[in-house]
Amino acid sequence: MFLPRRILEEKIRNMLAEDLGQGDVTTALIVPADGAAKAEVIAKDAGVIAGMEEAGILLESLGLKAEILVPDGEKVKAKNILIKISGNTRTILSAERTLLNIVSRMSGIATTTRELIQKIHKARLKTIVACTRKVAPGLLYFDKKAVLIGGGDTHRLHLDDMILIKDNHIAVAGSIKKAIEKARKGVSFSKKIEIEVTRVKDVSAAARARADIIMLDNFSPEQIEKATKLLKKEHLFGKVLLEASGEITAENILAYASKEIDIISLGEITHGAKALDVSLEITKSNTAATKRYAVKPLN
Amino acid sequence: MFLPRRILEEKIRNMLAEDLGQGDVTTALIVPADGAAKAEVIAKDAGVIAGMEEAGILLESLGLKAEILVPDGEKVKAKNILIKISGNTRTILSAERTLLNIVSRMSGIATTTRELIQKIHKARLKTIVACTRKVAPGLLYFDKKAVLIGGGDTHRLHLDDMILIKDNHIAVAGSIKKAIEKARKGVSFSKKIEIEVTRVKDVSAAARARADIIMLDNFSPEQIEKATKLLKKEHLFGKVLLEASGEITAENILAYASKEIDIISLGEITHGAKALDVSLEITKSNTAATKRYAVKPLN
Amino acid sequence: MFLPRRILEEKIRNMLAEDLGQGDVTTALIVPADGAAKAEVIAKDAGVIAGMEEAGILLESLGLKAEILVPDGEKVKAKNILIKISGNTRTILSAERTLLNIVSRMSGIATTTRELIQKIHKARLKTIVACTRKVAPGLLYFDKKAVLIGGGDTHRLHLDDMILIKDNHIAVAGSIKKAIEKARKGVSFSKKIEIEVTRVKDVSAAARARADIIMLDNFSPEQIEKATKLLKKEHLFGKVLLEASGEITAENILAYASKEIDIISLGEITHGAKALDVSLEITKSNTAATKRYAVKPLN
Amino acid sequence: MFLPRRILEEKIRNMLAEDLGQGDVTTALIVPADGAAKAEVIAKDAGVIAGMEEAGILLESLGLKAEILVPDGEKVKAKNILIKISGNTRTILSAERTLLNIVSRMSGIATTTRELIQKIHKARLKTIVACTRKVAPGLLYFDKKAVLIGGGDTHRLHLDDMILIKDNHIAVAGSIKKAIEKARKGVSFSKKIEIEVTRVKDVSAAARARADIIMLDNFSPEQIEKATKLLKKEHLFGKVLLEASGEITAENILAYASKEIDIISLGEITHGAKALDVSLEITKSNTAATKRYAVKPLN
Amino acid sequence: MFLPRRILEEKIRNMLAEDLGQGDVTTALIVPADGAAKAEVIAKDAGVIAGMEEAGILLESLGLKAEILVPDGEKVKAKNILIKISGNTRTILSAERTLLNIVSRMSGIATTTRELIQKIHKARLKTIVACTRKVAPGLLYFDKKAVLIGGGDTHRLHLDDMILIKDNHIAVAGSIKKAIEKARKGVSFSKKIEIEVTRVKDVSAAARARADIIMLDNFSPEQIEKATKLLKKEHLFGKVLLEASGEITAENILAYASKEIDIISLGEITHGAKALDVSLEITKSNTAATKRYAVKPLN
Amino acid sequence: MFLPRRILEEKIRNMLAEDLGQGDVTTALIVPADGAAKAEVIAKDAGVIAGMEEAGILLESLGLKAEILVPDGEKVKAKNILIKISGNTRTILSAERTLLNIVSRMSGIATTTRELIQKIHKARLKTIVACTRKVAPGLLYFDKKAVLIGGGDTHRLHLDDMILIKDNHIAVAGSIKKAIEKARKGVSFSKKIEIEVTRVKDVSAAARARADIIMLDNFSPEQIEKATKLLKKEHLFGKVLLEASGEITAENILAYASKEIDIISLGEITHGAKALDVSLEITKSNTAATKRYAVKPLN
Repeated sequence: MFLPRRILEEKIRNMLAEDLGQGDVTTALIVPADGAAKAEVIAKDAGVIAGMEEAGILLESLGLKAEILVPDGEKVKAKNILIKISGNTRTILSAERTLLNIVSRMSGIATTTRELIQKIHKARLKTIVACTRKVAPGLLYFDKKAVLIGGGDTHRLHLDDMILIKDNHIAVAGSIKKAIEKARKGVSFSKKIEIEVTRVKDVSAAARARADIIMLDNFSPEQIEKATKLLKKEHLFGKVLLEASGEITAENILAYASKEIDIISLGEITHGAKALDVSLEITKSNTAATKRYAVKPLN
Repeated sequence: MFLPRRILEEKIRNMLAEDLGQGDVTTALIVPADGAAKAEVIAKDAGVIAGMEEAGILLESLGLKAEILVPDGEKVKAKNILIKISGNTRTILSAERTLLNIVSRMSGIATTTRELIQKIHKARLKTIVACTRKVAPGLLYFDKKAVLIGGGDTHRLHLDDMILIKDNHIAVAGSIKKAIEKARKGVSFSKKIEIEVTRVKDVSAAARARADIIMLDNFSPEQIEKATKLLKKEHLFGKVLLEASGEITAENILAYASKEIDIISLGEITHGAKALDVSLEITKSNTAATKRYAVKPLN
Repeated sequence: MFLPRRILEEKIRNMLAEDLGQGDVTTALIVPADGAAKAEVIAKDAGVIAGMEEAGILLESLGLKAEILVPDGEKVKAKNILIKISGNTRTILSAERTLLNIVSRMSGIATTTRELIQKIHKARLKTIVACTRKVAPGLLYFDKKAVLIGGGDTHRLHLDDMILIKDNHIAVAGSIKKAIEKARKGVSFSKKIEIEVTRVKDVSAAARARADIIMLDNFSPEQIEKATKLLKKEHLFGKVLLEASGEITAENILAYASKEIDIISLGEITHGAKALDVSLEITKSNTAATKRYAVKPLN
Repeated sequence: MFLPRRILEEKIRNMLAEDLGQGDVTTALIVPADGAAKAEVIAKDAGVIAGMEEAGILLESLGLKAEILVPDGEKVKAKNILIKISGNTRTILSAERTLLNIVSRMSGIATTTRELIQKIHKARLKTIVACTRKVAPGLLYFDKKAVLIGGGDTHRLHLDDMILIKDNHIAVAGSIKKAIEKARKGVSFSKKIEIEVTRVKDVSAAARARADIIMLDNFSPEQIEKATKLLKKEHLFGKVLLEASGEITAENILAYASKEIDIISLGEITHGAKALDVSLEITKSNTAATKRYAVKPLN
Repeated sequence: MFLPRRILEEKIRNMLAEDLGQGDVTTALIVPADGAAKAEVIAKDAGVIAGMEEAGILLESLGLKAEILVPDGEKVKAKNILIKISGNTRTILSAERTLLNIVSRMSGIATTTRELIQKIHKARLKTIVACTRKVAPGLLYFDKKAVLIGGGDTHRLHLDDMILIKDNHIAVAGSIKKAIEKARKGVSFSKKIEIEVTRVKDVSAAARARADIIMLDNFSPEQIEKATKLLKKEHLFGKVLLEASGEITAENILAYASKEIDIISLGEITHGAKALDVSLEITKSNTAATKRYAVKPLN
Repeated sequence: MFLPRRILEEKIRNMLAEDLGQGDVTTALIVPADGAAKAEVIAKDAGVIAGMEEAGILLESLGLKAEILVPDGEKVKAKNILIKISGNTRTILSAERTLLNIVSRMSGIATTTRELIQKIHKARLKTIVACTRKVAPGLLYFDKKAVLIGGGDTHRLHLDDMILIKDNHIAVAGSIKKAIEKARKGVSFSKKIEIEVTRVKDVSAAARARADIIMLDNFSPEQIEKATKLLKKEHLFGKVLLEASGEITAENILAYASKEIDIISLGEITHGAKALDVSLEITKSNTAATKRYAVKPLN
């Protein structure tokens, strides 16, 4: 998910622009135009840091100097300094909240992702932990990238990615077999085909129609077990990736994970992640007064 | 926070465009271009619904018919139908995820807000529950509006709203008194002035300098009590609004709320709100086949 | 200057969006969401009306019904009704100021233009009255169109229009002759060439180099007369259009206009035009109460 | 109204882009691609300068060097040099008109504002002079900022700012009292409430309902006096700010201003301000010829 | 590649806006504002039609009525009518060129694609004909969709699609094996991995590292044969898709196609396709005169 | 057609953004974030180079260093190096395809243009070779500029340029005479008037009505000869420019060119031009490994 910084910059600047409205009126009144400051972005809780690339781009595009002390993906403790900033005080204060909102959302998602993965690893499993498209609306890039930084799988990046045949598509096509055939006939050779099934017996129909991945949607752990047994019996197991999805949370994830399941996907990674608390502290500021805009006072 | 729908439509369409990329390839392969369907958006958990205006605008701007069954701000139970949709099947399926992401985020925030307010009300208090600018980056409008729908206070809508003098501004100005004076001298008559204080004794300096609102930042319940006593002693109580902020959560909110505190603000309303689970079900679809783009098969 | 309405709509909507910020908070608090109203846009001063096409597009694009009673270019008296509007009350009130700002600026320019033309006509002259590119920044389309509606000439619509060789270009090229030759060599056959001269004697150099138009920049009426005599003497008069420009105002325009001068251009038409006063009155409104967003009151 | 320069830059670049169309054809034909020049922006009339920040941002964002000689808000005489520019000649000439249009509009507004304020000050009054939202459409930021630089009050920055209840809102609500109550019930604690009244007797209703500011709309000086007397009589004077608005011009402003009136607002500041005349002169240019795009001539 | 029409509309409207500049001046001068017309879009050459969906969206979004007579993907002869249009004459004439440019480019690409496919089919082969990312810059969506309509494969839709490891990536990674391993380790389960090889012997390394697709870049037909023999010998044939690419044209395509080659990709489909000639004829027009903008003539 | 680079940059960046989607996933997986490289853009065929200004702007705006070795308009042979690039490897690889698409399209058009001009010159004629508005949709600026670089005439840059009265306009106006009169009455003095005629006899009507240019639309060489004879006979020859257009191709251009014809215009220059083949080669790369985003492996 590499974007040249000028492209990323535009996405981020729109976020800043919304927050600014017609400008930071408080800062304009109190902070001199030429004041300079040093500041630090500090983690207030422990977690996995994400959003450092975005933070750096935002700061540098505003003419501020930014020293990133913690790379994306690294674990920090509370009070760790993440970024050292220097430059125009007004600019720092005006961008503060947007900067923190980006870092705290992305780090919150990365932290949640990492915790889930570590549960899986502790259980000596290799199941992939993936997010879904259940993101904050408009933040597909940022939320998916935070999952990636946390160590998770991004799943489809958007609707032009992999074919994912859902229940509504199957209903329109008439059957699992017909849906996969219809898709295969027109799909580019460059894309995989995944299909969502809701009943155990549908797993073999999907595998026989040569889906690349089968999503076991809202299957209970017992149904998952039945499904893998069925595939083994029909000598289809191992010829298709299996993804468990639906109703899975941080609490019950180990009930769903197993050697037979290749991927577990959860909306909760992005829809339920709490932002990681981060703050910005001015550590030094130069307050040379300026006299702009002054009308001679009445004497 | 009223926006004419054409203005809102543009914000929402950008969200949809990101999710679409070069288009919904799955739907294009399986669903005929002229297919029509009926669908329902259904709550999968109980909560306070928000985002109905936005959902309606998104659907109608895409040429779909939308019947909103639950007004913004209403409580629903799991399985309640929120919206009935009819129109082109491809369009419904392509917009589904963006639609649900908007409704689930906004409803999650509204639900969290309402729960906090009800705690306050049960304690027979009238303290205002407000959000902050700690939103998902770029979603200032949507997150603030969801708080409003939940019954909360939107606080500053962006940086050109009310003057809010924070610790960093005070540091630059030299003192609470100087900061407020500097702000008052240049501020428009149309704006209120709020100042953030971090020590009990600063409360009387802020009140004497005639701030409209004092934010008690990271004060413990004990400090808050001391601060109000100090103001009463100095006959300044009641002349300024008091806002408690920092470290306040759903769990401890009642320790901070009291008759003396006018406003409690929490980043958690927006930064920690879990999305409300909603889904879209196709209830009926017309699958007349189309034969577009077909190349004569090899015989 | 015909633009299909969807293209114009986008330019106008950006104006509205800036004025709205995060939305009309007053209207949202007081006017019910479903309220409907009738309103009128009324001229408060006499003048030539412009901006009716733009007003109609703005209103209709917001879902309002608009009946334009006065076509662009028509003279009105104070109290004349220009537009009758009906539709959603919130939408009308939110768009009111942007609507009036467009109509009043464009009508102000059209009125000023018409007055200048009528002075010329009363003096039984046919000199063309043209504007320049001295517009409100970003309003090139609107200001030029208002001049056109007032009966004036739009001159260059932007920098890719006609070649206009100014003093700075001549300085770079070395001489009037070289500048015109350089331009002619590379210019598209589809474009005219105008050159700005600042001294009487330069007029014949410009005419001999076969400029299509000569701009007499900051010439006094006496200098203009000398220039035309010179051209006549050299049998070049009538082979090139003559444009007087610079320091010309509504007061002194007749001193510059003459049978020999084809065009008079003034920055003042757009840079000095006072907006025509127009207002919007709600003539009828339906105030059915709505109960959205209500939190059960504490009892 | 502080905006980081990257945000301002985008607003300004859109203005330039409109003026350029497909590019400056004259300059491309005559000025070599690598030519460099020095230039000066010069005031041609006396006035209060504004737009220097915007000018600097435009120039620097185009890769030109800009030395601002006169800070925003300073008075200049005719012929004063405002900015020294150096860099690529083509770029200077292509941006010239947009640059001048910004500076001349903003300086015109700042000059008008300052003159009004000085009238007030000479009369030994402290009445605030405020603008309205009657700006050139789309130029809300630039027009308001120019007023601020001139020493005036920006009033509402847009519709999400302070609550301003106008006649149409009162009509919908039923009465002044009901309108204010309705607004107060839902409004954020962070916002003031202003109400517009059109009759003397309404002033006390508005004050009793605890509006923060009362706008005396289209009141004659006599009505204003009656209104303040009424408030004094009812012991409400001094508890609410009073704003006179409507029909006030540079000529009659002193008839409206008084010790009792806190604010005078005029649409004329922005709707009637004449642009300040400024020009750009190339003071030095380097005309090294280039031979690009040349097709071998026919021999 | 299904996009809801509102999303497509925006892409297309930007094309129109560029062509319009400040508006269609010819049409504004000659065609009355209220004139209505009927028109037809006609093929002037035989070919496969594409762009009908886009044409319909453009026309309808401008308020015109459009009847599409030929579906995308259908072959037409010269003089066949493609679209019947009715509505405002000015709008039809202003949009004419943009409309025709879209249809003629897309149809040109679809026609070229279809011809290549028919060559393959006549040779009784099933080799997929794919385009590359060699499109007109900015027209990725339109060019790829035209290939699809012609019956071709769209290959990667953009850089976030399938992994495609090119020579430069291999050079950075150190070897084919390392590059594929590095990619596999981090790639989402949802994506295929393709690798480009430039020497016959590299084919087995790529297949052994379990690439999903191997691109034989600039292989001669002889090299392709050697490569498939090598794979067969190593029992790797059939376990990986083979794509021939580079130096392939309409003339030599059959030398490259064979039962062993799954895909042939050509930049020429999009980079070399000649636009199909189409024109728009007004078949009927209503010329009711209008008198707008008229200044009373001098008498 | 000079645009300051910041304006051009935006047009080009939108092209890049479309190709990137959510980012270059291949490069992100294989190329370290801090890797640096040197690369060359190389012509693979002989031709006239265009797009070097655009290429330089794209590269530099992404933070890469670009050395342009071949100026726009210069002929190159196959294997000539056009640009040397150095900088971040990921950025180079992500921008590669957009860069090449711009250069190859523009160079293809410039090459075609130059060939046509050279045919004309070899025939010892001076007829101008012009393009039309038949460009790739959205690429008006780039296609026209490429024609200019090739030595051709850009004709109208868009619809607000010169008046060009086409058959449909004449039909609406009633006659050639009426159409020209109608246009002349309202047109700005700054614009030329061209009219398209389809019959020999119409040429004299157009010339008598004082069109600046007459387009002989779809005239055969014989008809062109008749038309010029007719004009000579009526002493109108030389008073109007003559443009031949329609059905003219590289093959038959000399049949249409003659001393009497001033301009020949062809849609084929832009609609039929084959892209010039160019490629990018990494010549050196620094592959320092980075360890970002790594989750501790399971042991």
